[in-house]
Amino acid sequence: MKTELISIGSELLSGKINTNVSYLGEKLGSIGLGLAYETSVGDKIEDISAVFENAIKRSQIIIATGGLGPTFDDLTREAVSRVLDRPLTLKRELLSSIARYFLERKIEMPKNNERQAYIIEGAEVIPNLLGTAPGQILAFEKNKSKKIIILLPGPPKEIQPMFEKTVFPFLKKYETGFRKKFTLHLCGLAESEVDEKIAPIIEAETKLEAGRDSGVEFSILAHQMIIDIGVVVSGKNEMLVEETLTNLKNEFYDILGINIFGEDKKNLESVVGELLSKNKKSLALAESCTGGVVSHRITNIAGSSLYFKEGVVAYSNDSKVKILGVNKETIEKYGAVSAQVAVEMAEGIRSISLADYTLSVTGLAGPGGGTQEKPVGLVYIGLCGPTIKEAYKYQFSGNRVEVRQRTANQALDLLRRQLLSDSGLKVKTGL
Amino acid sequence: MKTELISIGSELLSGKINTNVSYLGEKLGSIGLGLAYETSVGDKIEDISAVFENAIKRSQIIIATGGLGPTFDDLTREAVSRVLDRPLTLKRELLSSIARYFLERKIEMPKNNERQAYIIEGAEVIPNLLGTAPGQILAFEKNKSKKIIILLPGPPKEIQPMFEKTVFPFLKKYETGFRKKFTLHLCGLAESEVDEKIAPIIEAETKLEAGRDSGVEFSILAHQMIIDIGVVVSGKNEMLVEETLTNLKNEFYDILGINIFGEDKKNLESVVGELLSKNKKSLALAESCTGGVVSHRITNIAGSSLYFKEGVVAYSNDSKVKILGVNKETIEKYGAVSAQVAVEMAEGIRSISLADYTLSVTGLAGPGGGTQEKPVGLVYIGLCGPTIKEAYKYQFSGNRVEVRQRTANQALDLLRRQLLSDSGLKVKTGL
Repeated sequence: MKTELISIGSELLSGKINTNVSYLGEKLGSIGLGLAYETSVGDKIEDISAVFENAIKRSQIIIATGGLGPTFDDLTREAVSRVLDRPLTLKRELLSSIARYFLERKIEMPKNNERQAYIIEGAEVIPNLLGTAPGQILAFEKNKSKKIIILLPGPPKEIQPMFEKTVFPFLKKYETGFRKKFTLHLCGLAESEVDEKIAPIIEAETKLEAGRDSGVEFSILAHQMIIDIGVVVSGKNEMLVEETLTNLKNEFYDILGINIFGEDKKNLESVVGELLSKNKKSLALAESCTGGVVSHRITNIAGSSLYFKEGVVAYSNDSKVKILGVNKETIEKYGAVSAQVAVEMAEGIRSISLADYTLSVTGLAGPGGGTQEKPVGLVYIGLCGPTIKEAYKYQFSGNRVEVRQRTANQALDLLRRQLLSDSGLKVKTGL
Repeated sequence: MKTELISIGSELLSGKINTNVSYLGEKLGSIGLGLAYETSVGDKIEDISAVFENAIKRSQIIIATGGLGPTFDDLTREAVSRVLDRPLTLKRELLSSIARYFLERKIEMPKNNERQAYIIEGAEVIPNLLGTAPGQILAFEKNKSKKIIILLPGPPKEIQPMFEKTVFPFLKKYETGFRKKFTLHLCGLAESEVDEKIAPIIEAETKLEAGRDSGVEFSILAHQMIIDIGVVVSGKNEMLVEETLTNLKNEFYDILGINIFGEDKKNLESVVGELLSKNKKSLALAESCTGGVVSHRITNIAGSSLYFKEGVVAYSNDSKVKILGVNKETIEKYGAVSAQVAVEMAEGIRSISLADYTLSVTGLAGPGGGTQEKPVGLVYIGLCGPTIKEAYKYQFSGNRVEVRQRTANQALDLLRRQLLSDSGLKVKTGL
């Protein structure tokens, strides 16, 4: 059963990164429908048609993304109609649902959007709750072989719910094996350290694999002080796959312990949020060089208003003194980028907010402003809490955006470790 | 002259993002060799061969990345050799250079790496200074038509110097003309409105094109209240390409005027930063539901400390009163999400910071907390400045992250328009 993907849009061939391939490839892989091919093609109808013709010859399941919009350069519907020699027919219910979309948003429906109410004869509609472009599923026979064409819009945020809700359940009927995975997220170790620590696990697994029905893939990815270890186990026996997965996860926890801050979709801000909620503690922030990055990330989490009280972005020396109550003399004596100022910032926001924990950040994100003594990338993070009042010094590499994200990760990880230690909680070991 | 790309590697079909396509697409586009297709294919030799066969039929220039490594699953060389029916021959110099690579790194050369010294009969070697996999360029004739196949390794850091140093100069001989482009960024109009407004320009251009040597491609992309209009002009006559580009840009500015906030790599925060710098004005922020998003974006810009004084993330009612001096009664009477509170927040941060301009945001980002009267997505943006004290009401759709980004875009655009109006500046018209 060959499955392939067609990505439609000239922007994909002239510089725009296509994230749909990785999303769909991963999802399809999880039910054993790994992609054999992915083709990106521009907005010319001849080229799109040629790609579909070729795909129909060699694959059974064809999923196309993009080119379903209302504008002149959206030609996927027309191309498929042409290749299959099936007319496009107006679906009245679809027209009303598109009209409703605009009505709800109090916008007059542009004439162009009518085009989106046409479907390939025989196709089923895939509802799109987040946009006006509905998807289509068409099952048909070609030379006595069953084929499926699935058309989805281009925007990832529209594709993902449509795929989860309609396409995935539909395709699960074709599932050919089991494939399960987990990802562990770490902070506080260098990539090479992690690499060395986990080498014995990977070697042992590779030796075992030869005599077994299941396969294991490992990956390691470092980004801005965070390291992700990915493990994928696949095989025909679901119990064996599950067992291998559990054993491997336990081995990683044994070796890496508290350095693992979360699994799969967790991130530092969600883990910190959970710890604060669980312990009924509150947080406030005083940021200088991160300029709101930490605050932005903390408040990305739904429900953060339960533990996050407030943040101050004290970008100027003046505002450090005026709002946070940092001593002018401390800044004059040690400089704004110093352990002393970091501590006073954290203390300042703590006395304003009365939060249980406060984090402060002061540093040089660059590109300008560095000196021999205080180079770009120098950052002090202050942390105040029931049992701590401390500043930590770091020297980060990278550009402005990287230094800011690395600082935010480090600050959140410091808070996470403090929350664990204060509450006597242990990091989860095993499943 | 059709050009296409083949990306080889199973990992590209199961979750790994392929950045080579965007890099090569952009580079090739700049010399008029825009990609017609890109195909990703796994590590099976049958699949790779089928993709090459198809590519040779439809394209003149074929660039493949990946599958040149030393291991069992690196089969690009074998596939091309099979499809073209040309043997792989050992190149002695190549073997020595690979051996030298290992010698320099004091590693014993694994036997496997010998495979990398084989090239397709008739091909030229592309040296690889950063890895052991050399590239190959093969020019040949097929059915009396000239074809070129270029094989490159997979890692972006190896590809990029090889492409710059050897492949790009080689391909420049095939340069088919000139290709220039611009992108205009808009805020404040719906996609359908923009579509309708620009339709006459696109129609007129399409009619003109028939009798002309140059081609024009338009694209339109909407994301979080921002709309990007992309224009690519290509042709053999550089002056004509330049002229068409200038004329089109002028036409767009005539129709869309102040709604265009920037071109190409500009974004709202950089444009607002430039306007503040140019007018020597300062900014401070008071955010509630955006929780630091606006502050984060403003301070992403290097040099923002020159105009950004401070920000307060007043996430709780308490902090709105305590830090920003919002009246408790105003919150009780109108609610925290109200025009009155937005204005008092903007006034509050203005009197603390003494900044020339202040923005405030209060709203419901969701997913929880909405009511019939005040649904999720309801946002008030306050703006204070030398000539203004106003709150603006919005109802945004989308999830939490989207509502927050849309709000930030809208807030920055309000400030941009106010800065333009206060300073009597006109948005750039034409080049």
